[in-house]
Amino acid sequence: MHKRIKLTIAYDGTRYCGWQIQENGITVEEMINKSLSGLLGEKICIMGASRTDAGVHALGNVAVFDTHTRIPPEKISYGLNQRLPEDITVQKSEEVPKEFHPRYAAAIKTYEYKILNRTFPQPICRLYTHFIYYPLDVEAMQKAAAYLVGEHDFKSFSSIGGQTKTSVRTITALDVEKEGDIITIRVSGTGFLYNMVRIISGTLIQVGQGYRTPESVQEIIEKRDRRFAGPTAPPRGLTLIGINFTGNDDKIIDMGGQV
Amino acid sequence: MHKRIKLTIAYDGTRYCGWQIQENGITVEEMINKSLSGLLGEKICIMGASRTDAGVHALGNVAVFDTHTRIPPEKISYGLNQRLPEDITVQKSEEVPKEFHPRYAAAIKTYEYKILNRTFPQPICRLYTHFIYYPLDVEAMQKAAAYLVGEHDFKSFSSIGGQTKTSVRTITALDVEKEGDIITIRVSGTGFLYNMVRIISGTLIQVGQGYRTPESVQEIIEKRDRRFAGPTAPPRGLTLIGINFTGNDDKIIDMGGQV
Repeated sequence: MHKRIKLTIAYDGTRYCGWQIQENGITVEEMINKSLSGLLGEKICIMGASRTDAGVHALGNVAVFDTHTRIPPEKISYGLNQRLPEDITVQKSEEVPKEFHPRYAAAIKTYEYKILNRTFPQPICRLYTHFIYYPLDVEAMQKAAAYLVGEHDFKSFSSIGGQTKTSVRTITALDVEKEGDIITIRVSGTGFLYNMVRIISGTLIQVGQGYRTPESVQEIIEKRDRRFAGPTAPPRGLTLIGINFTGNDDKIIDMGGQV
Repeated sequence: MHKRIKLTIAYDGTRYCGWQIQENGITVEEMINKSLSGLLGEKICIMGASRTDAGVHALGNVAVFDTHTRIPPEKISYGLNQRLPEDITVQKSEEVPKEFHPRYAAAIKTYEYKILNRTFPQPICRLYTHFIYYPLDVEAMQKAAAYLVGEHDFKSFSSIGGQTKTSVRTITALDVEKEGDIITIRVSGTGFLYNMVRIISGTLIQVGQGYRTPESVQEIIEKRDRRFAGPTAPPRGLTLIGINFTGNDDKIIDMGGQV
């Protein structure tokens, strides 16, 4: 009898062409499939919860796969980490019900977009933050963020290329915080459109720069047109923090340590 | 008339063979010399305060050079950063008295050694922390650290290859703190022997693992023999935070933002 195993996965997205397998470069999904197939001696194809873009990082992306292995579920992480490169680490492996699918299970996803806001870039955080030397007005960004919380049609905040039928989504929380030189946009929701977090971040940055008023965000939502929102902020600032499955078929996941 | 210019420099040491120019690979000193010579149109050879090892990072290393340029001293940083690669950034440029030499001026240097202490590595901080899965006893490390503060002969904590005549140094502060999964060993002193901070860190890690008692550090100091101390901890965990020049010939430097 096969078992369904859930993996919680952290990665540095810098050198990957995103999560999803594609022809033009190496991806996180591909690296995990290869390592898992080697470890278990079966051909494994994982199903991921979030297909992060090229250059985007994760502390807790989630994937599942089916296997006949006799390795205890919680031990798979150890064997897998010995085969994976240093920039991908499985944080947890566990058995889940066979009907559990991370893309269709009810869940809250949390992302953080980090901005380094100071006179000069800081080399040791260059890969995980978006550098802006122009001082940002955090209070204005917080005001603007408030308009986005709740259920809205986020069509203005979505790149073409998304495959979903409706662009209505619910943002359950959206906070902007500053600590030292780092401004963090932390957003949680039940689902996100293609590039949605990066377009929200790009729009909030323009509010912080004074190019837009906080109130203008309300108008952008109403326009339902991508051209009215700000630019798509660069991928390096974005990290998928974790996915909290809210259904009864799964328990709340550990998001893993944060730095 | 020439001027003496002081640079405060941050870098990610990952891909460099350390600070000092050598034949076998690229170094931070070499990159700055090339960029400065190109910017100013004169051949520049900087004099650095701290010759950090391969893989060691800095938020605030210091170097000086002499120039006839008409570029205002504080503007040199902007021009230089446009020529430097993304993993080296000048945080400040300023004119200093002509007799100021960063290696001989009285100064307190501060280093941090960061340990990631959790079950699995975290990809996004792998380049800037040393990963240890075995839980460390931070309290024991703090007790051990107390023995090292003050003026001592640190011969046991020095690798061969150092060029100094005496191995007596003064540690003005040595703190061990844990925040989340990160243990930080923060050490300040008037000067350090070759590999001294990494050998102190390697020894404190062994105390944290229970291989040594805190009290044994006193014995290690008294032995004045490298073989009695712990191993040299890996370079990636080490960052030169800043150098505080204490003489009257220079003011306290800004250490730059920390993450």
